[in-house]
Amino acid sequence: MRAVDIIIKKREGQELTRPEIEFFIQGFDRGEIPDYQASAWAMAVLFKGMNLREITDLTLAIAFSGQVIDLTGVVPIALDKHSTGGVGDKTTLVVEPLVAACGLPVGKMSGRGLGFSGGTLDKMESIPGFRTDLTIEEFIHQLRTVGLVLASQSADLAPADGKLYALRDVTGTVPSIPLIASSIMSKKIASGAQAMVLDVKVGLGAFMPNLEEGRVLAETMTLIARVAERKAVALLSDMNQPLGWAVGNALEVKEAVETLQGGGPADFKEHCLVVASHMLVLGGATSDEEAGIALGRTALESGRAWERFRTLVSVQGGDVAAIDHPDRLPAARLVELVPAPRSAYLSCVHARLVGETAVMLGAGRTKKGEAIDPAVGVVVHHKVGDWVEAGQPLFTLHANDEARLPEARRLLLEAHTWSDQPVEPLPLFYEVIR
Amino acid sequence: MRAVDIIIKKREGQELTRPEIEFFIQGFDRGEIPDYQASAWAMAVLFKGMNLREITDLTLAIAFSGQVIDLTGVVPIALDKHSTGGVGDKTTLVVEPLVAACGLPVGKMSGRGLGFSGGTLDKMESIPGFRTDLTIEEFIHQLRTVGLVLASQSADLAPADGKLYALRDVTGTVPSIPLIASSIMSKKIASGAQAMVLDVKVGLGAFMPNLEEGRVLAETMTLIARVAERKAVALLSDMNQPLGWAVGNALEVKEAVETLQGGGPADFKEHCLVVASHMLVLGGATSDEEAGIALGRTALESGRAWERFRTLVSVQGGDVAAIDHPDRLPAARLVELVPAPRSAYLSCVHARLVGETAVMLGAGRTKKGEAIDPAVGVVVHHKVGDWVEAGQPLFTLHANDEARLPEARRLLLEAHTWSDQPVEPLPLFYEVIR
Repeated sequence: MRAVDIIIKKREGQELTRPEIEFFIQGFDRGEIPDYQASAWAMAVLFKGMNLREITDLTLAIAFSGQVIDLTGVVPIALDKHSTGGVGDKTTLVVEPLVAACGLPVGKMSGRGLGFSGGTLDKMESIPGFRTDLTIEEFIHQLRTVGLVLASQSADLAPADGKLYALRDVTGTVPSIPLIASSIMSKKIASGAQAMVLDVKVGLGAFMPNLEEGRVLAETMTLIARVAERKAVALLSDMNQPLGWAVGNALEVKEAVETLQGGGPADFKEHCLVVASHMLVLGGATSDEEAGIALGRTALESGRAWERFRTLVSVQGGDVAAIDHPDRLPAARLVELVPAPRSAYLSCVHARLVGETAVMLGAGRTKKGEAIDPAVGVVVHHKVGDWVEAGQPLFTLHANDEARLPEARRLLLEAHTWSDQPVEPLPLFYEVIR
Repeated sequence: MRAVDIIIKKREGQELTRPEIEFFIQGFDRGEIPDYQASAWAMAVLFKGMNLREITDLTLAIAFSGQVIDLTGVVPIALDKHSTGGVGDKTTLVVEPLVAACGLPVGKMSGRGLGFSGGTLDKMESIPGFRTDLTIEEFIHQLRTVGLVLASQSADLAPADGKLYALRDVTGTVPSIPLIASSIMSKKIASGAQAMVLDVKVGLGAFMPNLEEGRVLAETMTLIARVAERKAVALLSDMNQPLGWAVGNALEVKEAVETLQGGGPADFKEHCLVVASHMLVLGGATSDEEAGIALGRTALESGRAWERFRTLVSVQGGDVAAIDHPDRLPAARLVELVPAPRSAYLSCVHARLVGETAVMLGAGRTKKGEAIDPAVGVVVHHKVGDWVEAGQPLFTLHANDEARLPEARRLLLEAHTWSDQPVEPLPLFYEVIR
């Protein structure tokens, strides 16, 4: 078997066999197939696609490039959730303790933010002392004893995925459904997830620009899960505007804390309850989503979800005082409240522009490995469809570098567009795919 | 400017600007843009194509990645010919001395064979002592003083082309018209050609499988020539069956010698006269192709073309006795004549299979840099359309390794297909594109 023949076969739109896919991924992972063949192959996959059989074989080849955790016997069912990434998406911070508070253990491996999209690890690390680099042994031990873990993806899991993603990132081969789906699902399978909720974001601030592409990704991932004998439900959720109000690491932790304590933005709370309800059904805690939402609401209102979050922070070395008193979380030196320039209906709060503004202020990174500032970010005060009076607070900038304020203000004003006619609010979810 | 953005732009089917193309080629040539970005870019070009402006800019960027020879003042007009490669294509060996015999100097840089397609340098090097690695200074000096040069492509010319081709070869990105056309034309421009005949082969034993793709390549190259202010005529010629009879290095030199001495296969002789006539017209030796063919025929019959070939061999260190007495050229130990298995019309002599058989016997290489055996190869005895009686000689195998004979015999019998109904002979040429 030769790598070049496999590239040519895919370039010609032919179906690759399982041995061909395994040969390519294993060879690439071991460094026997060079990057320049892998990138040409990825571009051919981008143009010619893969059928479900190929995507599943690709997913498994990537998953089995490293250790595959078996959580059988550790927990009754290994539950997970995954978001394809968005702006203001601090869902995991609320959903994980919420589901745990309903009696189902959750162990989750998360990622860092890149570009306009935030990352759960970055958010949690704005809590002083919170440690995410657990070993696989620590992960399993904590899941068994505490029933709640939030760690970084171990380098021992699906190493071919990290290598392939780094290559795709610099060769224009990111936006390919087979490559995205296999990347996500290989990590889920390697980390031992047996049932999962896949939150596929669509819209201006998501990697999937429209519902059609989001649906294809969601269907592909649920089908991979089925072939790999895992349970999965995919939600298509809106990412045209930020989720909740806060965008920026400590700012989002504050918002998650408020939500766990029964407050928080209505859209974000609702989003968390729906995601949690699907996890509760998958995990067998309840039979339908409606009952799951009721369970979740009780877990929030009773303070049990909040208590689980405090335990999570404490057990992973975080400063519990900083979440008990969120004013002790990193705070920006400069806070500027910008008023609405006119009285009108909000027709757009452009999620991507909001995310890019936060990155510009230092909340995110444009390249892997860049340092970020946990304190800075943006808080928007309105949602699409809201009537806003001129002079009312429109958004708040949290910055440590004064020089960046004018550009941030300009970008965020541009992110808000207006209509004199009433505008329909955006839905939270579009579809559920099982 | 970032390489990844240029890849993405092409992936999205957008037109690249001249600065973008120059940035990419120069960066790649200098090693600043890594192979894995260049191969992904090449795959995107393969799928999305380039317009004529982009292809011309690409050609010039590659040409100017190294030295560009200026032959003004060396010869009245720098003439060249190029074949896209085929099986049994020893045209240069005859055409170059033939055109020179008609009074027009010809300096040509040639290549080596790869895969089923032979290479002029390999053929000439079966003449003991013949040296092809001339410096650019030697090339110019010999062109000026002898009016006839046949050398290898200098590494100083279009270095980005060699680097890019080596990468394309192992990444499945060879069959792209913009990449093929710019590769050929960049070398022609760098080597100083002012007027050229482009012999574009189409068919089973050519890189262009059909007339439509051959035509696009031919039109693209002539248009590049026009933009680059060079004269060019492209011929679309048949490569479904081998050109002439002999396939294999010394065997082809023998056939070229016979042709230069007034004999040789009718199809090959005719092919050479047509190619030469177009060069004679481009070079101003005559006004039309018909007159050019008459001039060429005279040059062959008078022995002047043969005399020029002897001079070329002699001046580049070759053993003239070996061409005066071709039985002194390298000869294979085993010669097996295979008879026709049936009486019928020949409907196909599959050029690619014939070429691959010759490679299998050792006449060519499957990888760059492999050693070849100058003595071995194949001689076919019939053309498509011929009526062949069972038992008549069908082909002759020339081998040095007995173990390879059965497979060679099997492949060549498979290459010949038969019809009980009369079959039209194949044309030599399909079209002329100016």
